[in-house]
Amino acid sequence: MLNKFSFNLKNTHNKARRGEVFTAHGKIQTPAFMPVGTAATVKAIKFDDIKKSGAEIILGNTYHLMLRPTAELIDQLGGFHKFMNWDKPILTDSGGFQVMSLSKIRKITDAGVEFSSHLDGSKHFVSPERSIEIQHKLGSDITMIFDECVQFPATYDQAKEAMERSIAWAKRSKEAFKQRDGYGIFGIVQGSTFRDLREISAKKLVEIGFDGYAVGGLAVGEGQKVMFEVLDYAVDFLPEDKPRYLMGVGKPSDIVGAVARGIDMFDCVIPTRSGRTGQAFTRNGAINIRNAKYKTDDKPLDDKCACYACTNHSRAYLHHLAKAGEILASMLLSEHNIFYYQDLMKDIRLAIEEKRFDDFAADFFDVEDVVDIEQ
Amino acid sequence: MLNKFSFNLKNTHNKARRGEVFTAHGKIQTPAFMPVGTAATVKAIKFDDIKKSGAEIILGNTYHLMLRPTAELIDQLGGFHKFMNWDKPILTDSGGFQVMSLSKIRKITDAGVEFSSHLDGSKHFVSPERSIEIQHKLGSDITMIFDECVQFPATYDQAKEAMERSIAWAKRSKEAFKQRDGYGIFGIVQGSTFRDLREISAKKLVEIGFDGYAVGGLAVGEGQKVMFEVLDYAVDFLPEDKPRYLMGVGKPSDIVGAVARGIDMFDCVIPTRSGRTGQAFTRNGAINIRNAKYKTDDKPLDDKCACYACTNHSRAYLHHLAKAGEILASMLLSEHNIFYYQDLMKDIRLAIEEKRFDDFAADFFDVEDVVDIEQ
Repeated sequence: MLNKFSFNLKNTHNKARRGEVFTAHGKIQTPAFMPVGTAATVKAIKFDDIKKSGAEIILGNTYHLMLRPTAELIDQLGGFHKFMNWDKPILTDSGGFQVMSLSKIRKITDAGVEFSSHLDGSKHFVSPERSIEIQHKLGSDITMIFDECVQFPATYDQAKEAMERSIAWAKRSKEAFKQRDGYGIFGIVQGSTFRDLREISAKKLVEIGFDGYAVGGLAVGEGQKVMFEVLDYAVDFLPEDKPRYLMGVGKPSDIVGAVARGIDMFDCVIPTRSGRTGQAFTRNGAINIRNAKYKTDDKPLDDKCACYACTNHSRAYLHHLAKAGEILASMLLSEHNIFYYQDLMKDIRLAIEEKRFDDFAADFFDVEDVVDIEQ
Repeated sequence: MLNKFSFNLKNTHNKARRGEVFTAHGKIQTPAFMPVGTAATVKAIKFDDIKKSGAEIILGNTYHLMLRPTAELIDQLGGFHKFMNWDKPILTDSGGFQVMSLSKIRKITDAGVEFSSHLDGSKHFVSPERSIEIQHKLGSDITMIFDECVQFPATYDQAKEAMERSIAWAKRSKEAFKQRDGYGIFGIVQGSTFRDLREISAKKLVEIGFDGYAVGGLAVGEGQKVMFEVLDYAVDFLPEDKPRYLMGVGKPSDIVGAVARGIDMFDCVIPTRSGRTGQAFTRNGAINIRNAKYKTDDKPLDDKCACYACTNHSRAYLHHLAKAGEILASMLLSEHNIFYYQDLMKDIRLAIEEKRFDDFAADFFDVEDVVDIEQ
């Protein structure tokens, strides 16, 4: 039944998984990368071009949207899909992470979080119930529970307290969520870098029962090595028959390594944010197009890429645009990077299907982290 | 012969003219509006979308390009068309206007102009010969003579001196220009708001002989009324069998009024610059999308427009993007405005062909200048 929210695990290669998520707005092939549409736009890219990249789902930020233009306005205008004219699946985060990282926190209690907007200082309150209500008004295909994210590094006691509060909030989030065919809600495992906390968090979330499980509290400064160490055990605590989502990750090599550890879904601002600063991901490593060596380079960014920039423009032209601070540089590089990420996911999916993902991952690490420095 | 630079006057309605310019890179239907690609990009728009708008020629700025990335680099990379991947005609200005308005002038002599770059203060010298050389390296289909623009208002003596120097420079520009099939050079009439100077300037330019004639020194703060008064006589001094280009103009009503006075070609940054500040031109007048009344408006900007924004997004969505300072707002509004301008030119051309341009112009002035103010 296509209209029921569900996950179909099609293939595996060691821990790596090849699957499909079914939602109200269509299927998502996993492992999947979700471009981030923070304020109802994947920055500097038209939605048609997002679709051309192969992206099947985008992420929206509850925190940003509740402040501007507000969930109520989006609801009045027919929901988030209609508001931005994106007819494929949408996942919204719960606002938990941004409340902690962007706003000025006033007070965290068991009831919820009181905070001041980073836009105008206005006071707001978000509880699990309010976060779920906002995500319902937006019409998200995938709703995330409202959780408390601790900073890294956290002491054991800090991590334990936040994890326990997050479990209580997860229960309230689930209760507040209105079940509808094709719409799902994901739990978020917390516990920082502590194995027993990750295990307790996962078990309690599974007891509550969710349509998918996210690994939260990573990509917060711990570095790839520590992140992979946590994933090595944390993913094993999650049920096999539900999608697994690593929030806010990451660099291409982070994604390949996390897929190897059993993750199915990703989101990150890196492709678009990097694009706006002149960085482009290519099959020969990441490059900074502002580097003087590209001034006379008439080759495309990546000759295997089908994006607009790679099929129309040279590195020399992109170098000029970036040096001149032209908006077109941000547009072309952001779109290219989204294409790169989607191509990476296609390659990952194929490698799992063909049982050669381990080789793919091993080869991949040879070239990914070559970032050249502006000269 | 398509490969010879030429002008074919097809229809007229009173002074309004419907024609075709033939260049090395294709035909241009006139009256034509040329989007401005200052630094080798029409700001915030992909070239494919420029083409979709119906634009058949774009303008490049010699002043900006000679400083960055330099004419020599563009030449080395195969010329301006190849550098930015635009295969239709290009007109380049001569740098005269920007040298006066943007740079710090060091010295103007009969030899040329010594100035400091607005980018890094570096010293440069442009003469008629150097300007033509730069435009040759760029590979412009239409080269403009190097002239001296006086500010507005100018005294009669100032205007006369600059006009006379411009005539001398026009001769040197013509001599420096390398004749090639499909490539043309335009003279520029100066003389500020003085009828006899405009007449002398036009006659002397015609004696030298050019492939087209521009009216320069307008759109420099004199206002539409004075501009039209100058055009009322200045255009009559120009030969009928060559295209006439009004530089740096303008608002939609400026264009309609100038076509009525016999102008064939226009360029202006208004559509793109306005787009970046939230202004959109529509068939019901110009609007500022940041205005609070658009917050819940689910209609398109202009329901008769075929641009991406009008066929995909609501005013409410564009309002949100503009208020949030999103790059996508600049992209969508700039593209829309270029579509609006090209549709306007199509409507103008059809109205001339059908001998109803006077009615078109009279109706047009009823709605054009309704610009709402941000609230």
